[in-house]
Amino acid sequence: MSRFWSPVVHTLTPYVPGEQPRLANLIKLNTNECPYGPSPRVLDAIRAATNDTLRLYPDPTAQALCAAIARTHDIPADHVFVGNGSDEVLAHTFQGLLNHDAPLLFPDITYSFYPVYCGLYGIRHETVPLDDDMRIDIAAYRRPCGGIIIPNPNAPTGIALGLDAIRTVLTDHPDAVVVVDEAYVDFGAETAITLVGRHPNLLVVRTLSKSSALAGLRVGYAIGQPDLIAALTRIKDSFNSYPLDRLAQAGAIAAIEDREWLANTRGKIISSRDRLTDSLGKMGFAVLPSQANFIFVRHPDRDAAYLAAALRERAIIVRHFRTPRIAQWLRITIGTDAECQALIAGLADVLAQNGG
Amino acid sequence: MSRFWSPVVHTLTPYVPGEQPRLANLIKLNTNECPYGPSPRVLDAIRAATNDTLRLYPDPTAQALCAAIARTHDIPADHVFVGNGSDEVLAHTFQGLLNHDAPLLFPDITYSFYPVYCGLYGIRHETVPLDDDMRIDIAAYRRPCGGIIIPNPNAPTGIALGLDAIRTVLTDHPDAVVVVDEAYVDFGAETAITLVGRHPNLLVVRTLSKSSALAGLRVGYAIGQPDLIAALTRIKDSFNSYPLDRLAQAGAIAAIEDREWLANTRGKIISSRDRLTDSLGKMGFAVLPSQANFIFVRHPDRDAAYLAAALRERAIIVRHFRTPRIAQWLRITIGTDAECQALIAGLADVLAQNGG
Repeated sequence: MSRFWSPVVHTLTPYVPGEQPRLANLIKLNTNECPYGPSPRVLDAIRAATNDTLRLYPDPTAQALCAAIARTHDIPADHVFVGNGSDEVLAHTFQGLLNHDAPLLFPDITYSFYPVYCGLYGIRHETVPLDDDMRIDIAAYRRPCGGIIIPNPNAPTGIALGLDAIRTVLTDHPDAVVVVDEAYVDFGAETAITLVGRHPNLLVVRTLSKSSALAGLRVGYAIGQPDLIAALTRIKDSFNSYPLDRLAQAGAIAAIEDREWLANTRGKIISSRDRLTDSLGKMGFAVLPSQANFIFVRHPDRDAAYLAAALRERAIIVRHFRTPRIAQWLRITIGTDAECQALIAGLADVLAQNGG
Repeated sequence: MSRFWSPVVHTLTPYVPGEQPRLANLIKLNTNECPYGPSPRVLDAIRAATNDTLRLYPDPTAQALCAAIARTHDIPADHVFVGNGSDEVLAHTFQGLLNHDAPLLFPDITYSFYPVYCGLYGIRHETVPLDDDMRIDIAAYRRPCGGIIIPNPNAPTGIALGLDAIRTVLTDHPDAVVVVDEAYVDFGAETAITLVGRHPNLLVVRTLSKSSALAGLRVGYAIGQPDLIAALTRIKDSFNSYPLDRLAQAGAIAAIEDREWLANTRGKIISSRDRLTDSLGKMGFAVLPSQANFIFVRHPDRDAAYLAAALRERAIIVRHFRTPRIAQWLRITIGTDAECQALIAGLADVLAQNGG
């Protein structure tokens, strides 16, 4: 607390990202990174851009990247907005499109950055409970609101909604912006980008951090009709003209264009996820049906915090949220098959001990 | 205008960055980039970081980069905050430290992003006129305020304040944050970082875009006592956990550590500036005494917009601001000696014609 701080700073409860340990040889299953390196074409493109042109500002409009994204999704380039990770894109979205008199709605169990943005921008919001199966109940959103944000699939549950449900939310609220956060959509859910043409109130947010294996490059984007994109552009140009550096723009274009690498990588992760789900089920864990690159699990009679700590002693880190309703669950990123095997062996070892 | 926009979006007047033309063979003297490429050690460091670790999130605290900055300036690491260009650092500063009941003060002629930030965050502000010599008049800031931001040297004038003047502002306003924006300090002004230890209300903001020739990498930082740094960190962690990607962190560390490259480059630019100032003076231009990597010039009887357009026809672009008091001035970035020669030849050619 300080007399120098603007009043809003005193009220903030900042987001706490998953740990980025500096230890080597950890099996890191806590922040939903891709277990495989990015496309070799990405590394080549970055190396090619690593030259004296770094003295020059990047293209503030990231025109070439927006065009590549537009081609991939078969939409016009003026439907695309890019930013420094989907977190920055979301921040601008909360400030520019979701701050109205009526409350913003989002699930009670979801990406924990959403209420943080509300705090930063003074946005009224209400959370809508997941049902007893931890699913988003679309009917519960049928009430007056100033906007809706739903991840699909949801995090940390991994459960996806079908496009029919998304379409219902869109038509229920023609005057409110509905944001579908598709950070994890490439692992089995259906994208809502195909609905953008018919729904001027739809904004879809994406990231290259997960399925493109580029968490370290910080690139995200949003897709919507030009009216929504214009609001984000106005915010961005009042905040930071050049949020994406030259290397990030070059690497992101290569990532977006390498569809074969993406198909191959998502296939491997989906196969690993299905095998891991099966194995943990046989060990007595409840595993929610995930369409993401992580699974959300609980054991019927072992404490989740205990399990997380015991795994950590075995050099395996997973994510445990000490929050209501999910304090007995663990979110586990899908690793390589070797990492999944090590996780299974570690959990078997922990379960064989007394404790928890 | 849209029913979907948050109310603030309708009120914004976004910043307009200098043009980034896609044409080759232009002599680009409009955005104060360095005419020389960055340190070769920066390129090596980026190449070394271009590998499969891009799949992992960056260090959200950028610990190694903060430590490198701290060593260079001989201050503790908890005095350092880093961000995605000094524009992002400034945005967080405006939101987190400069939004109070009393108005923020800054010069009437200065970096044109300052009023934009005020619009974005609803910050009351008053501008303080430069004197008739286009200098900041420190005495004019002696009035109640919620904060002060002053670039040193100022842009677009290039005129620097001495540390005595900065010290006067700091002691005049012990309860308000005073931000010294040192984007251009390496070209001849004296840094206020040496005052941070004695003045808890001082925040110094820096960028690698200018003197480190890394406009394309997007790295800026702030230096102040931990109380001020904490406010910026709370804002950042409520906005985007990882604003600096892995490549930017790696490149920035190398840039900060290569002091010899910096000394050599600043020396070349200062020499070029002094020669260019002399030449333009002999051609009849008024040239303000610059301590920056640009000069601010006017011709007694040629219209500035005409001169800018005529230079552009000769493939030379400079910056012209169509704003009160400076509409007859041009801001010209210091280029290589060959670029300065081409500018002189171009202006001589224009002056020899009728027009303007």
